[in-house]
Amino acid sequence: MKRLFNKIEEWKIVQNKIEFEENRLAESIMSLGNGYMGMRGNYEESYSNDSHRGSYIAGVWFPDKTRVGWWKNGYPNYFGKVPNNVNYIGIDVLIDKKQLDLAKANVKDFYRELDMKNGVLTRKFTAEMDGKEIEVNATRFLSITTKEMGVIKYEVKSLNFDGEITFKPYLDANVKNEDSNYEETFWVNISSDSRVNGGNVVAKTKENPFGTEVFTVGAVMEVKTSKEAKATIHENKEYYSENTIIIDIKKGETVALEKYVAITTTRDYEECNLVEIANEILNKELSKGYEVLLNEHCKAWNKRWETADIKIEGDTVAQQGIRYNLFQLFSTYYGDDARLNIGPKGFTGEKYGGATYWDTEAYCLPVYLGVADKDVAKNLLVYRHNQLEPAKADAKKLGLNGALYPMVTFNGTECHNEWEITFEEIHRNGSMIYAIHNYTNYTGDYEYIKQKGIDVIVEVARFWASRIHLNKRKDVYMIHGVTGPNEYDNNVNNNWYTNYIAKWCLEYACQNIAKLNEEFKEAVKRNNVTNEETENWTNIANKMYLPYDEELDIIVQHDDFLDKEFIKVEDLAKENLPLNQKWSWDRILRSCYIKQADVLQGMYYFGDKFTKEEKKKNFDFYEPYTVHESSLSSCIYSIVASEIDNLDKAYELYSRTARLDLDNYNNDTEDGLHITSMSGAWLAIVQGFAGMRTYNQSLAFEPKLPTNWDGYSFNINYRENKLKVEVRKDSVSIVNLEGESIEVSLYGEKYTIEDKIEISRMVVDLA
Amino acid sequence: MKRLFNKIEEWKIVQNKIEFEENRLAESIMSLGNGYMGMRGNYEESYSNDSHRGSYIAGVWFPDKTRVGWWKNGYPNYFGKVPNNVNYIGIDVLIDKKQLDLAKANVKDFYRELDMKNGVLTRKFTAEMDGKEIEVNATRFLSITTKEMGVIKYEVKSLNFDGEITFKPYLDANVKNEDSNYEETFWVNISSDSRVNGGNVVAKTKENPFGTEVFTVGAVMEVKTSKEAKATIHENKEYYSENTIIIDIKKGETVALEKYVAITTTRDYEECNLVEIANEILNKELSKGYEVLLNEHCKAWNKRWETADIKIEGDTVAQQGIRYNLFQLFSTYYGDDARLNIGPKGFTGEKYGGATYWDTEAYCLPVYLGVADKDVAKNLLVYRHNQLEPAKADAKKLGLNGALYPMVTFNGTECHNEWEITFEEIHRNGSMIYAIHNYTNYTGDYEYIKQKGIDVIVEVARFWASRIHLNKRKDVYMIHGVTGPNEYDNNVNNNWYTNYIAKWCLEYACQNIAKLNEEFKEAVKRNNVTNEETENWTNIANKMYLPYDEELDIIVQHDDFLDKEFIKVEDLAKENLPLNQKWSWDRILRSCYIKQADVLQGMYYFGDKFTKEEKKKNFDFYEPYTVHESSLSSCIYSIVASEIDNLDKAYELYSRTARLDLDNYNNDTEDGLHITSMSGAWLAIVQGFAGMRTYNQSLAFEPKLPTNWDGYSFNINYRENKLKVEVRKDSVSIVNLEGESIEVSLYGEKYTIEDKIEISRMVVDLA
Repeated sequence: MKRLFNKIEEWKIVQNKIEFEENRLAESIMSLGNGYMGMRGNYEESYSNDSHRGSYIAGVWFPDKTRVGWWKNGYPNYFGKVPNNVNYIGIDVLIDKKQLDLAKANVKDFYRELDMKNGVLTRKFTAEMDGKEIEVNATRFLSITTKEMGVIKYEVKSLNFDGEITFKPYLDANVKNEDSNYEETFWVNISSDSRVNGGNVVAKTKENPFGTEVFTVGAVMEVKTSKEAKATIHENKEYYSENTIIIDIKKGETVALEKYVAITTTRDYEECNLVEIANEILNKELSKGYEVLLNEHCKAWNKRWETADIKIEGDTVAQQGIRYNLFQLFSTYYGDDARLNIGPKGFTGEKYGGATYWDTEAYCLPVYLGVADKDVAKNLLVYRHNQLEPAKADAKKLGLNGALYPMVTFNGTECHNEWEITFEEIHRNGSMIYAIHNYTNYTGDYEYIKQKGIDVIVEVARFWASRIHLNKRKDVYMIHGVTGPNEYDNNVNNNWYTNYIAKWCLEYACQNIAKLNEEFKEAVKRNNVTNEETENWTNIANKMYLPYDEELDIIVQHDDFLDKEFIKVEDLAKENLPLNQKWSWDRILRSCYIKQADVLQGMYYFGDKFTKEEKKKNFDFYEPYTVHESSLSSCIYSIVASEIDNLDKAYELYSRTARLDLDNYNNDTEDGLHITSMSGAWLAIVQGFAGMRTYNQSLAFEPKLPTNWDGYSFNINYRENKLKVEVRKDSVSIVNLEGESIEVSLYGEKYTIEDKIEISRMVVDLA
Repeated sequence: MKRLFNKIEEWKIVQNKIEFEENRLAESIMSLGNGYMGMRGNYEESYSNDSHRGSYIAGVWFPDKTRVGWWKNGYPNYFGKVPNNVNYIGIDVLIDKKQLDLAKANVKDFYRELDMKNGVLTRKFTAEMDGKEIEVNATRFLSITTKEMGVIKYEVKSLNFDGEITFKPYLDANVKNEDSNYEETFWVNISSDSRVNGGNVVAKTKENPFGTEVFTVGAVMEVKTSKEAKATIHENKEYYSENTIIIDIKKGETVALEKYVAITTTRDYEECNLVEIANEILNKELSKGYEVLLNEHCKAWNKRWETADIKIEGDTVAQQGIRYNLFQLFSTYYGDDARLNIGPKGFTGEKYGGATYWDTEAYCLPVYLGVADKDVAKNLLVYRHNQLEPAKADAKKLGLNGALYPMVTFNGTECHNEWEITFEEIHRNGSMIYAIHNYTNYTGDYEYIKQKGIDVIVEVARFWASRIHLNKRKDVYMIHGVTGPNEYDNNVNNNWYTNYIAKWCLEYACQNIAKLNEEFKEAVKRNNVTNEETENWTNIANKMYLPYDEELDIIVQHDDFLDKEFIKVEDLAKENLPLNQKWSWDRILRSCYIKQADVLQGMYYFGDKFTKEEKKKNFDFYEPYTVHESSLSSCIYSIVASEIDNLDKAYELYSRTARLDLDNYNNDTEDGLHITSMSGAWLAIVQGFAGMRTYNQSLAFEPKLPTNWDGYSFNINYRENKLKVEVRKDSVSIVNLEGESIEVSLYGEKYTIEDKIEISRMVVDLA
C-alpha cells in the first residue's frame, strides 16, 4: 500500500502538492470520463517531465499486429488496442512570450481536486517565472449530458506584473500509443483547419490487413476569452490546429479562456460530416453559456448518485474508496450504448488493450443490475449475443464445437495471445451463461432468453461437450489443460471451478431447452437442438468429475494441487511479494499461491449450493495461500468472509478492493486504473456486509457491520422496486422507496414491506 | 515423406533437374560445411526466384533483442542468432553483357551432385539466352585441411556462338537474417577494397546493449582465369567488393574462373590483421594449385570415412541415408575447436538460432565417442564446464541453487524465451551429467571428473535439491511444473523421466563425492561439499516419487497422463498430421500424443536398469501414441525396438531418422537440415541393430539384421582399440584393427579378441 494523496475527503480526491516523482500515478487517479470518451489527469499546460498523456474514445480501436516470440497455432493475428486519441485539452500558456512549463516553473500552493459528486476536475496554483507570478484556476469536465463535449475554463491572474498572457489552445491528433507492438503510429491525417477562436482536426485509424473497421475521429474546438485579445493568430498543419491569443494583463487582473471541444466519430456519423456535426453540437451547447453547461452536468451526476451512492458512517477512508470506485466505473460505462463494453483500464491507460473481458459479466453486471436501469445490464448481454459468430469461429480455430467467447476483444474475435490464457482459460465461457442466469433471475425477464440468450446458452453447451473428455478407466468426464481463474496455475487438469461451471452450463442448457420446448419451441428449433444432444449434455453433467479431498474435507482446486509445498503467505519473507514482480513464472506456477479467487469464485457464484460450514472450511484452507495479485480477487474473498462471519478479514479485503488504486496496492496504478474491479467494492458492501442474495427469484439480506463503522446505507433497484437499506449499530431498516409492496427476507425471516421495516441488527458472534 | 531427388546413389546426392518449386529444400540438402564455416546450396550465379541465400561462420553470433508478446520474469534479454554472413561464393556471369539468371534463362540438362565421399559439390548444365548457349561446369568445396578456405572452379563453354563472357566474382557482406526480430541488420561495414583479380570486405556485428562479444569477419578473394581477360574492372563500395573480367570466347571454347576465398575472424585474430592473415593463407595455398588443394581436401574426407563409414549391403536408400547423416554432422562439427558446439541447423539455415542444445550431450556425444578421437568428446564436456558460471547465474534468476544449463545458448546464458521450455524443460540438466558419465564410462578416463567434471556434477545436484520439493502428506519428493522431453506436454507434474534422471544425478553426485573423498579430496573441497549436503541428496534420491501404474504395469509418463483420452496415431484421420501444423497448442497439450521419446528416453539412457520385458511393455504402450514430430525421437524408439526384437518397427524408425531431411519427413527441411539428429542414424545402427552397449566399463554387442538388408559393417573406437564389426545374414565378425587384445561380450557370451572372432549370427525369433 502506498497512498499518494493523504488528505481524505468523502466526496473528493485531493492533491496538495505538485507531483513529480509519481506523476503518472497522479494522472491515473485524476482521470475523467463520460462513457463516450475520457482521459488521464494530464495538465492543460506544457509539462516536460515524465508524463503519460492519454485521451481515449470508447469503441474506437486499432488491430495492432500480434507480437510473439514463438508462434502457436490458433494465435490471433492482431491485438486490439485503444488508440491514444486526439489531445483536445492542450492549452499552452505564455507569460510575456515565455512558455509556462509546470516541470520547470516555480510552482507553489498547488491544489487539485477531483469532485466525484459533480464529476469536475479543478486545479489551483501559483507559478513564477523570471519573477513574474501568476495564479491559475482551471476547471475541466466531460459532459454527461452532451457526451461529445469537453469543457475547460482556464483563468490566469497576474499577481505581480503588468504584461501579456498568451493562450495557445490546440488540438493535436499526432499522438502515439506507448505500447504499440512495432512502434507504429495508428493514425492518418485526414484534414485540419483553423480560424479565429476555433479549429478542427480529423484523423483516421490506419488501414489494416485484418479486415477490421477503421475509424475516423473529428475534433472541433471553440474558444472564448473573458477579455478582448490584442492579437490573434490561427495556424494548422497535419494532425494539428492551434489558436494563439495574446491578451494584456495588469497586476491583480484575471483573464480567462474557455475551451469547448466536441468529438465526433464514424461510429455515429459519416466521415464527411464529422466536423459539421461537431460544430452543430458545439454551437447549440455554447449558446447556453458555461455556467448552465456546468450545472446541467453536475445535476446529472447528482442524479446518478441518488440511486447509486453508498453512505458509510464513521470511516471516511472507506467512504472515499467506494465513491471513487463507483465514480470511475460510471465514468467508463453507464449503459448508454449497447455497442460498448467495459475495458479493464477504461479511459485511464492503454496497457492491456481490448475492451471486453469476462470481468464485465462476473463483476460489473451485478452492480449495474443493482443501481441502473435493467436495460443497461441487458445491453451487456446483447453485446455478447451480437458476438456469437466470432465466438463460434474462435472455437472452431481450436478444433472445438460451439462458441468460445474471448478473453480479450473489441469485435468478438479473440485478440490475446498467450496460449495458457487464450486457449486454456476457458472458464470465462461459463460466466457468459452465468450472466444470463443472473440477469434473468434478478429481473424476472425470461424474454431475453427466448429471443437471444438461448442461442448463447446452446453454443456454449456445445463447446463444453466437445472440450470435455471421457476418462474411460475411471468412467468420469474430465477437463484437461485449463487455466482456472487463478492464473498462477497454468495448464492444469480438472480445475474444480471450471469443471463445476461447465457442468452447471450443461444442466442450465438442458433446463432451458426443456422450458422452451414447453413455452417457445421456435427457440429450440432455431438452434437445432435434438433430444440426443441434451441427453449427452445430461450424461456429461451427471458424470462430471469434481476434485474433492476426503481427509481435509475440502474442494480441491485442481488435480495434484494438494501435492504442492504449502507455506502460508504470512510466513513468506516480505521481499518475495508481489510474486509477479519478484518470482520467475515457473516458480509462481509450482507454488501454492493463488492470484485470485478460484474455488472461492465458485462458492460465490453458486452460493446457494454450499453450506456456510463448507464455505468456511474452504475459505480457511485457501485464504492463507491467496496473494490477491489480481484486482478481481479481494472482493470475492471479502464477500465470502462476511458470509462466514470473518468480519475483520472481510473489512481488510474490502479496503484492498475499494482503495486498490487510491492506495496503489498492486504498485501498477501508474499504468491506469483497474476499472472493471471497481465494481468489487460495491459487491463487497452490498453482497458482502449487507449479505444481499437473489437466489431463485427472491431477495434476501443478512446485514453485518464492520466493527469500525457506525453504519452504512445504500439504495437498490430490484425488479419494479427501489429500496433503501440502512444498517446501523443496533438496527437495520429497509425502506420501499418506489413500487408495490415487496417480500424481502431479512436474517432468514420473511417480511412484506409496504413502506418500511426496521428491526434490530443481528450481531454476529465472532467466537 | 516427400523425396525431392529420386536417383539414389550410395555416395552421392544427385539432382537431375533444376528445382524451382522446392528450391529452398534443394538448397538445404546441398549444403556444405567444414566445421569452421558452411553454406546452403545456393548458386554462384544470379537466381531471381525464391531462394534462401545463407552462409554462416561457426562461433560468430549476434544477440537479437528478445521479441515476446507477454514478458515473464526470468526471460532472457536476447536470443542468440547465427548471423547470415558474407556471401563469398557469388559470381555473376554475363553472356555478351547480358546477365545469366538461372530463374529466367533456358536451362537444360541440369545436373548437381553432392559427393559425400570427397566433400565436393559439382554442377553441370546448359543455359541459353537470346539463342546463345553455354555449358557450365562448376565445382565447389570448403577445405577441411585449410579451414578458412573456400574454392570454386567455374567453367563456361560456348556451344554455339563467338562473343564474350563476363565473370563478376564478388564478396557481399550486406546480408540480412530472414528472421531478425525487429528487421534489423546485424552487420556494420568496416572496410572494403578491390584490385585486379581480388578484393576484400571486412564487417563487424553491431554493438549490442547486452555486453556480449562483437565479431569482425574478414573475407578476401583471389581469382584466376584460364585465359587472359580483354578487360578488367574492379570496384568496391560499403560491404562489397567486385571484379569484372571480360573474356573473349569462341564457339566450342571453354574458359574458366577459379575463385579462392579465405575467411578470418576476430575469434582467432585481431581485427586489424584479418585481411593480411587471410591474404597470407590464400597466398600459401594458391601456390599449390587447384588440383593439389582439391586432392588434399578429398584425401582428408576419405580418412574421416575410413573410421566412420557404415556400410550397408542390399539397401542403397538406407546406405545413402546414413552417409548423408554422417557427412552433414561432420561438416558441422569435427571437434577441432573446443569453443564450438553443434547447432541444430549447423550451417544450413538460421531458423532456431543458438549453437548449443542438449541434443549435443544426448545424441551427438556417443557418435563422436565411437568414431573420433576421445578429445573431441572431451571438448564437448569442457565446453559446458566453461559455461558453469552463466548456468549458475541462470539458476539464480529462477530463484534456485546450483546450475541450470540452458536450452539454447552461445555463451552459456539461456537465450530462449518460452517459459514452458526455458524454465521448465529442466531434464536437460540431467543430460549434462549423463554425458560426463557416458564419457567416463566409455573412455575409462576418470581424470576429467577430478579436474573439471565434478564441479558440474555438484552444481547440478544442488540445482535438483532446490528444485525438488517434499510432499509432506505423502512423504515423497516430487518435481512439479516441468516439461519432459515430450514437448507436447507442458507444465506437468512428476514427469517420470525428469524425476528419474534427477534422482540419478543426485546418486551419481554422491558416488563421485565418495570416490573423490578417497582419491582426490581437493575436488570435494573446491566445491565446498559437506556431508550434510550429500546426506540430503541421498535422502531425496531415496524418497523420489516415480509414477508407475500397477494395473497396466507400466511407467507413467507424468501425473494424470493416464487420465487422457487415448486414440492411437494409426486411428487418427490423416488430415490431423502433423499435429504441430494442424492442431492448436492446447489441443496438442491435452492429447495423448507424444512428440519424442520420453519414458523411452529414460529406458534408453538407463538401459541396464530395466529388463527387456519392461522395455517391451513400455514400448508397446507408448509407441502407438508417438508422432515423432521431433527429429530426435525415432532414433531412440528404433534402438529400443531393436532391443525388444521388433525389427520391422526398428527399420521403419531407422529410415525416418536416416532420411529425415533427404525425404523431408517433417516438411520443414527447407528451413535447414536437422543437424543434431543426424547422429540418430548412427545410433540406430550401432546401438540399435548392432546392439552395442558399454554399461559398467564393458563392451557388448547383440547384432540383429533388418530383414531387407544383406549385411552391414562399421568401425568403432573403444578406448585404445579400433574394432571393425561386420554383420551378415548368417554370421557376425569382430576384427580388432588396432590395440591390445580386448574383451567383448557378444550375445551375452564373453570373448577375448586378439585379431578377430567370427560366430554365427543369432537369429531373432519374431514370434
